[in-house]
Amino acid sequence: WVGNAIDGHVRLIDQTRLPTEFVRIDCRDVSSVWEAIRSLRVRGAPAIGIAAAFGAVLGGQKAGTGDLDSLRRGLLDASAYLRTSRPTAVNLFWALDRIERTIEENRGLDGPTLLERVLTEARAIADEDKVMCRSIGRFGAELVGTGQGILTHCNAGGLATADYGTALAVIFSAHSAGKAVHVFADETRPLLQGARLTAWELQRRGVPVTLICDNMAAQVMKEGKVQMVIVGADRIAANGDTANKIGTYGVALLAKAHGIPFYVAAPSSTFDLSLPDGSSIPIEQRDPREITQGFGRQTAPEGISVYNPAFDVTPAQLIDAIVTERGLIRPVDAKTIRKTLGPPRSSQS
Amino acid sequence: WVGNAIDGHVRLIDQTRLPTEFVRIDCRDVSSVWEAIRSLRVRGAPAIGIAAAFGAVLGGQKAGTGDLDSLRRGLLDASAYLRTSRPTAVNLFWALDRIERTIEENRGLDGPTLLERVLTEARAIADEDKVMCRSIGRFGAELVGTGQGILTHCNAGGLATADYGTALAVIFSAHSAGKAVHVFADETRPLLQGARLTAWELQRRGVPVTLICDNMAAQVMKEGKVQMVIVGADRIAANGDTANKIGTYGVALLAKAHGIPFYVAAPSSTFDLSLPDGSSIPIEQRDPREITQGFGRQTAPEGISVYNPAFDVTPAQLIDAIVTERGLIRPVDAKTIRKTLGPPRSSQS
Repeated sequence: WVGNAIDGHVRLIDQTRLPTEFVRIDCRDVSSVWEAIRSLRVRGAPAIGIAAAFGAVLGGQKAGTGDLDSLRRGLLDASAYLRTSRPTAVNLFWALDRIERTIEENRGLDGPTLLERVLTEARAIADEDKVMCRSIGRFGAELVGTGQGILTHCNAGGLATADYGTALAVIFSAHSAGKAVHVFADETRPLLQGARLTAWELQRRGVPVTLICDNMAAQVMKEGKVQMVIVGADRIAANGDTANKIGTYGVALLAKAHGIPFYVAAPSSTFDLSLPDGSSIPIEQRDPREITQGFGRQTAPEGISVYNPAFDVTPAQLIDAIVTERGLIRPVDAKTIRKTLGPPRSSQS
Repeated sequence: WVGNAIDGHVRLIDQTRLPTEFVRIDCRDVSSVWEAIRSLRVRGAPAIGIAAAFGAVLGGQKAGTGDLDSLRRGLLDASAYLRTSRPTAVNLFWALDRIERTIEENRGLDGPTLLERVLTEARAIADEDKVMCRSIGRFGAELVGTGQGILTHCNAGGLATADYGTALAVIFSAHSAGKAVHVFADETRPLLQGARLTAWELQRRGVPVTLICDNMAAQVMKEGKVQMVIVGADRIAANGDTANKIGTYGVALLAKAHGIPFYVAAPSSTFDLSLPDGSSIPIEQRDPREITQGFGRQTAPEGISVYNPAFDVTPAQLIDAIVTERGLIRPVDAKTIRKTLGPPRSSQS
């Protein structure tokens, strides 16, 4: 967020332009934030939640602080609209829940103060996210042995959060502790977040990284190059079933077949305890052209049928531990999850 | 092959241009055939062998038929050179072995007749390949149930052979028999042979096909959309361990995890009984730029380290059957392979 509540705006790195261009975009209205989330200019479960929270403030700005009803409606309409940007990552809904609760709990305030208060809540979501990243990094680093090869899928790094990531926080933290890790980054078709974003983040921070195609993961495991797998998450059900970028479930099965531990790193805001298991997590289906024309060139025949789910669900029994900012969840089951998360986070803030 | 032995030439479909352009290229010297194989303008184990056999004839042409020693040297040098084009698919070496044996066995002939005889051998390799495809299709179709979903990886179709393929022959044959199959084609990074070639071949022949990214295979299996997997092969060791396009080993593990049968379709010329198992099959490493700049756009940071093996080896125990032109090999083990293949094919021709 740049500037004050009344005329500030949201500034984002346009992740679709990486790694060849580092471009920041300024979003000055709700629809441009919605578009940035939908088109993955901003992506990663925590980062989506933060962007949406700030986006709601823009809705309030537009309505103006003169008329309190109109301001509240502007904020709530923006929140409702931003909820439609992407369906799977629960952090989006969690963050907007917090924004709406803030509006509700501050009924007595005047317009300018209410808008200020909502911006403060959005900033708090971002600030807590930074603390969360560091905490996940610290807890997760315990899982990493010196000299290990670590495979990751998609991007759960700084670009996906307000700080230095979830899965990548674990890697950065282990690297900083001198554990001499080597990362294998799945390129992650169709949108290549691994090649474009994870490889870029690791390279910038000096962590040794080798880029592979998704279909090479089994081979590097077989060759003994990988001793653990760690990925992020978009939504985790009460029993530990985890939705994450398409391909994660396959990687988890391959890790199991090679006896390699498979870990998920995610903040408590990624848990959706209202869902008993992963079967009811909504899976976003995306444009077939991401697959057929993803490289700027047509790579499949005209008119071909395409299946393009953006996420899959990894069953809890394939996950050896979930790293949260509150500690490790191990074994991954409903009881341990409840115990680790404690009372719902939103009621603590 | 277009024209006669003295001044004819090799004509190939340039597979790197598909599916958006259908372009034929004419190769009039050995080095252009070598380049076409190396750069995957012609690819697929059987097709490589056929192209190389015809390529050797071009070496003889250049030497001329006037001096017999010079002709023989031209043919043998061409054969030796073509052997260096790609290391993994054994059909290349098998076909050139036949060419060299033909040269050896016809020492008594004059120049023009020898060149003619070598061309005849190359044509025989191509013609036998056509018969082989039909035979594999027939044997393999028995494995296919009505209404089944079939997943395939890379391209083992008409483009990879002289006729309608190995793995795809099975699918075409089942489709022709009215079995209402539906194919899921892995796009097959980095060079997208699945998206560009398999999807194109199936679409042209009216077989229902859905294109997926490699990392979606586990998900379509989990959703119950796939009842069998069938792929081609580049080299099969005496115990049944099978080298095929990178990603095949992972698909085999995923099929196992879902209880889905995994089949390989390949002619007897793809077996290399001199290797006891897959550990000694040479695996080609290809240019990192295939991954980082595969389709004209840079998709990874400058200077990133990349691992790009072109093949992997699927252990025999993950393969439920191998479909050859001589029948099904099931179970896949050294004894059944020896029994099915009988005496080495080359001594029968």
